[in-house]
Amino acid sequence: MKNLTFLVLTFITIVAVGQEHSHRSSRSLTFPDIPGYKSIKTDLHMHTVFSDGNVWPNIRVQEALRDNLDVISLTEHLEYQPHSEDIPHPDRNRSYEIALQEAKDHDLLIVHGSEITRDAPMGHNNAVFIEDANPILQDKAENAFAEAKKQNAFVFWNHPAWYAQNPNGNPILSEFQKKRIKKGELHGIEVINMTDYAEESLALALENNLTIMGTSDVHGLIDWDYTEKGNHRPITLVFAKEKSLPSVKEALFAGRTVAVYNDLMVGREEFLMPLLQASLKVEKATYAGNSNVLEIAVSNVTSSDLFFQNESEYTFYDSSPVFEIGAGETKTLHLKTLERKTSVDLKLKALGCFVAPKVQPVVTWMVPTKQ
Amino acid sequence: MKNLTFLVLTFITIVAVGQEHSHRSSRSLTFPDIPGYKSIKTDLHMHTVFSDGNVWPNIRVQEALRDNLDVISLTEHLEYQPHSEDIPHPDRNRSYEIALQEAKDHDLLIVHGSEITRDAPMGHNNAVFIEDANPILQDKAENAFAEAKKQNAFVFWNHPAWYAQNPNGNPILSEFQKKRIKKGELHGIEVINMTDYAEESLALALENNLTIMGTSDVHGLIDWDYTEKGNHRPITLVFAKEKSLPSVKEALFAGRTVAVYNDLMVGREEFLMPLLQASLKVEKATYAGNSNVLEIAVSNVTSSDLFFQNESEYTFYDSSPVFEIGAGETKTLHLKTLERKTSVDLKLKALGCFVAPKVQPVVTWMVPTKQ
Amino acid sequence: MKNLTFLVLTFITIVAVGQEHSHRSSRSLTFPDIPGYKSIKTDLHMHTVFSDGNVWPNIRVQEALRDNLDVISLTEHLEYQPHSEDIPHPDRNRSYEIALQEAKDHDLLIVHGSEITRDAPMGHNNAVFIEDANPILQDKAENAFAEAKKQNAFVFWNHPAWYAQNPNGNPILSEFQKKRIKKGELHGIEVINMTDYAEESLALALENNLTIMGTSDVHGLIDWDYTEKGNHRPITLVFAKEKSLPSVKEALFAGRTVAVYNDLMVGREEFLMPLLQASLKVEKATYAGNSNVLEIAVSNVTSSDLFFQNESEYTFYDSSPVFEIGAGETKTLHLKTLERKTSVDLKLKALGCFVAPKVQPVVTWMVPTKQ
Amino acid sequence: MKNLTFLVLTFITIVAVGQEHSHRSSRSLTFPDIPGYKSIKTDLHMHTVFSDGNVWPNIRVQEALRDNLDVISLTEHLEYQPHSEDIPHPDRNRSYEIALQEAKDHDLLIVHGSEITRDAPMGHNNAVFIEDANPILQDKAENAFAEAKKQNAFVFWNHPAWYAQNPNGNPILSEFQKKRIKKGELHGIEVINMTDYAEESLALALENNLTIMGTSDVHGLIDWDYTEKGNHRPITLVFAKEKSLPSVKEALFAGRTVAVYNDLMVGREEFLMPLLQASLKVEKATYAGNSNVLEIAVSNVTSSDLFFQNESEYTFYDSSPVFEIGAGETKTLHLKTLERKTSVDLKLKALGCFVAPKVQPVVTWMVPTKQ
Repeated sequence: MKNLTFLVLTFITIVAVGQEHSHRSSRSLTFPDIPGYKSIKTDLHMHTVFSDGNVWPNIRVQEALRDNLDVISLTEHLEYQPHSEDIPHPDRNRSYEIALQEAKDHDLLIVHGSEITRDAPMGHNNAVFIEDANPILQDKAENAFAEAKKQNAFVFWNHPAWYAQNPNGNPILSEFQKKRIKKGELHGIEVINMTDYAEESLALALENNLTIMGTSDVHGLIDWDYTEKGNHRPITLVFAKEKSLPSVKEALFAGRTVAVYNDLMVGREEFLMPLLQASLKVEKATYAGNSNVLEIAVSNVTSSDLFFQNESEYTFYDSSPVFEIGAGETKTLHLKTLERKTSVDLKLKALGCFVAPKVQPVVTWMVPTKQ
Repeated sequence: MKNLTFLVLTFITIVAVGQEHSHRSSRSLTFPDIPGYKSIKTDLHMHTVFSDGNVWPNIRVQEALRDNLDVISLTEHLEYQPHSEDIPHPDRNRSYEIALQEAKDHDLLIVHGSEITRDAPMGHNNAVFIEDANPILQDKAENAFAEAKKQNAFVFWNHPAWYAQNPNGNPILSEFQKKRIKKGELHGIEVINMTDYAEESLALALENNLTIMGTSDVHGLIDWDYTEKGNHRPITLVFAKEKSLPSVKEALFAGRTVAVYNDLMVGREEFLMPLLQASLKVEKATYAGNSNVLEIAVSNVTSSDLFFQNESEYTFYDSSPVFEIGAGETKTLHLKTLERKTSVDLKLKALGCFVAPKVQPVVTWMVPTKQ
Repeated sequence: MKNLTFLVLTFITIVAVGQEHSHRSSRSLTFPDIPGYKSIKTDLHMHTVFSDGNVWPNIRVQEALRDNLDVISLTEHLEYQPHSEDIPHPDRNRSYEIALQEAKDHDLLIVHGSEITRDAPMGHNNAVFIEDANPILQDKAENAFAEAKKQNAFVFWNHPAWYAQNPNGNPILSEFQKKRIKKGELHGIEVINMTDYAEESLALALENNLTIMGTSDVHGLIDWDYTEKGNHRPITLVFAKEKSLPSVKEALFAGRTVAVYNDLMVGREEFLMPLLQASLKVEKATYAGNSNVLEIAVSNVTSSDLFFQNESEYTFYDSSPVFEIGAGETKTLHLKTLERKTSVDLKLKALGCFVAPKVQPVVTWMVPTKQ
Repeated sequence: MKNLTFLVLTFITIVAVGQEHSHRSSRSLTFPDIPGYKSIKTDLHMHTVFSDGNVWPNIRVQEALRDNLDVISLTEHLEYQPHSEDIPHPDRNRSYEIALQEAKDHDLLIVHGSEITRDAPMGHNNAVFIEDANPILQDKAENAFAEAKKQNAFVFWNHPAWYAQNPNGNPILSEFQKKRIKKGELHGIEVINMTDYAEESLALALENNLTIMGTSDVHGLIDWDYTEKGNHRPITLVFAKEKSLPSVKEALFAGRTVAVYNDLMVGREEFLMPLLQASLKVEKATYAGNSNVLEIAVSNVTSSDLFFQNESEYTFYDSSPVFEIGAGETKTLHLKTLERKTSVDLKLKALGCFVAPKVQPVVTWMVPTKQ
């Protein structure tokens, strides 16, 4: 039964100003653009009933809209088909087609994709930006990769650290992968899969010039796996020249990404640094009364809570050098400049962000002051 | 990727005692038994990808477990199969079989069911406790009902007030239904479907001795349709001799039900009255100091907020005669008895409950006092 | 130490639209004006360290500003001075003077007041709009009332039902009060004091033409007594020609008030009915699709949750006749008009409101429809 | 009016297990004992109407009980008496006496104290554990300190970084203070006052062997300054041989303290390290399946959220090396030990804690494993 407009239409929230402290960000993801590029929010690894997932493709589209994503891909296992008794489906493109139909009236781009699935050492790999999923289903894995390349697909290695395929939980680049990379058939690597971050995967990405990826790999419901626990789904921020599929594809091949999971951001220095710079916006900087204490108001314009450590030349007047700025929050930092400066460098280490294993970026904001 | 035990294992909530007022009940449904019967929580109307729903049957089982239900039925449309391109499935029992498998390690009973679907005046009908869904798929609706009867199914009319099948939004008993009732082929009627309650449907139930039903009729996600809006799904409380499928079936045929949606409870007087009596538990009753003011502590042991109006012989000392007791909450009522009584009758009208259109039950608790 | 602007300046809440159901109104009180009058929010009964309260008068002013009140009075007991060891204060006007000073830069009016305090049967009485508290302190209660009258004070009887002064908890009009009323020295009566509502006090108000009052009678902190429990403080809504002290005084003498505590509103029919009419605003009314089901969107523009029961000629299509509209919430009601009307009467009984003991007002909204 | 037991007595919260992620700790403070000492929660700097505060002393006692404090001191300014028009009070011990009376039935110790108040360079100083406040009121500051010493008081310098007394906001040790320290008349220094932490004050404490203090310095309401913003009040954890006033005094003179404000903890290494060690409790450590991935469940048994960075020999399998454990939360960390160990060292840097300016302690937990 489809009923009329539901009983509850609107709710005008009346909240006392300034009394809310806790960082209750919504599930909606937001990140600022960086100089020269749009920051495109993508999740390029998920499943539906067309492989081993539990929902129809339209639910994945609706989840993505709730999460404010720009681009998704439904990457069904080509080889693993536990629902084949009920969904015999010779055509492996159906999941994509249904999602495309569901998304047609929304501002959400659907990337055609598939998962090529093997045991270790090859493991699991996603081919996205494919043209036809059916010919990628091959007995020999090498042929599957060759076909993906023929289709100009972007291919990335999924959860390389997975302990089920590797008792140490450390990712190891096998001869298979080395050959694929050499042949231009493997272009990226997940450093965040589901809730899991492996810093050794990040090392592999940097050493082998692979694009850094973060994905939800969702099989059930985003709500149950992430939202109801207060988490966001992991995503890959792709820095594209415009919001279009060709542009996103170009950026992925060029390695312009940052993987994000809540307050964890992992990416190459050249992209993570400008992202952080844009994420924390200096609102104003004025001296307090007759003092030499500089008040700098900064806003976190992202949907992620951010943790920083002061590394400026000057110490804070009244707060710990280690602090959090919640998603959407504005804070005032007080720098003891000892004399009145016309401009100061605010230098902050982003404690939850990594440009290499254990290496946190230090970002500098040049702050002109008002006297 | 299946990861290890998730990072967040447990969370010890530290909440200041007595400082929480708002009735933040969980999604878990709870209702007390009534004298002679178990109160069985059932949802006997829902859909999956096997008709026009959007999830695999295992999700329906997991939703039911989260809602603390006892019994569910997946009632796929036999005739309406929008996913037939991908799920050709000649066997209409698959949805049931998959749910059964998913539920096998849990304390959740699965009822085999199907929806027989036609335009007005016949409309939509659920046959539950069937043996085989396939033979119920018939060209002639009469034959479908006859087959359901042959299988000893319990059959109920879905959302009779649906304005899409009836521009006035008022349920009308057609010749078709009258004949089905007469032949013992139609036994129940939904008075609550999704978020909708129609008091004229209740009138039809009472006039025609049909079992009163409430169902979610869910197609998407329970979380999106109900939970995230702070609502529970609608259910039918079935008063069964024991928690077993035969016992639930017997109770449905005997008409022992109350339909519940949040604070709305609709049922025959003989079942709704004892349910309310058990729902509000008198904890203790003592006189305050040297006064003639009797303090009666009452607890709402259900998962529904309840609204009452005092209809006792005595007025309240310090509160409105109209009051709410939230799910799980205990309140102290103060009765001005003018002299010290050894026992008083607490009479309350349940404002959100109906035993007939616009008729709210008045329940009496005989309360012995401590002097 | 006065520190700089605090660290946390602002917080931009990002809340998903339409996902919040629970009525989380703020502590800020809001009520609409009624035809011909401003609805002035007053609390005319409270205490500070200058009698038996626990805070300096400036805290009472700050609490009132947080609650969005328009008018307050600090009504110190003239006779009961438990802090006299530390505050010998011969001048009983100090509490008023300090509050006046604190409020001077805010849009909050301070009424000069005092509490005249005796045992039963006289009990406690507030004189507000006095000129000088000192001469009201008299050995003989009669003289205190006479002096209050001489100052043209508005005088009301506090918590007449108090069981400490009356074991039955029922208010009794003594000879003393009768004489005061006759002499024009007693003009109002509290029907709500603290969290307590006594319907017999309402009866006395109506029988004796006394102004209906609601007050917090706060001694400790509003936050601890009300806010942290999710309650508002009780207030008296005064319907004044303008927001000014003379106008409020005139309205009090004229009996133009409604006492409000959360969802409980108590007042004379001639004032409570227009208040309710203004509180529920019809936003629009249109017919759904091709049906005869009329969708009426209504908004609760007050800070109180409101409970209604449908008493219209037409039943609701899809919801219980008993419903709540939270503070600030908009709901759509669906009326089954059976044919398309150009206008309908929406008649609702306000279940939590009283114009006499146990008598709930029924309010009619004439609703023109859009075809 | 004192009413009967309030209407709302109890509320049984029904919360779905495992679904709450956010760290909603209560206002109640909790910290574990350390080897050899009780961890005593103290706030030794606050004001009431007896100097420039806004509440009666009983409110300070009730606030402390809500915050679960063990010891408080009301440190009224001896010299600054803005309420003297109304409270002439020749006896400066009244605030203490009233608090003592209010606390007598509770497990809260009251320390007799006073604030000695001057302009820079001397500034503000608290003398606690005094015997009589009156003789400490002296024209010459030197005499006030001498009298405090005569009474065997513990004296600490308040908010040394206060920019109102010092335009740079940097604490400077004047000749006055140096002389006081030399004469044994100044023993401690606030490194946290209100919401303010000054790392230069910590440097002064370490250089001059002064006891590290954190205080609320509250004048208004704890609820408004801290609780409603989601903050705790700052406190000094005192490591005493037992919970008694002499024991707390001994510990203060011995410098056994850690100042705490929310997730910021500041103290000498010899006390902060064992406090952290006790704060994070290893619940169990087992290897996952057949892997070499060690699962270590750790619980934060404090009321403060804690931030850590992994500095162990081994990297985490599936999470960032930087992580938060909320107050009361249990998390499972996964260490990649590459082979099965019988015991591992878990080394974590406490990012929000300081043993010297910018120096965060690294704590090691020796963790035996279960094979």
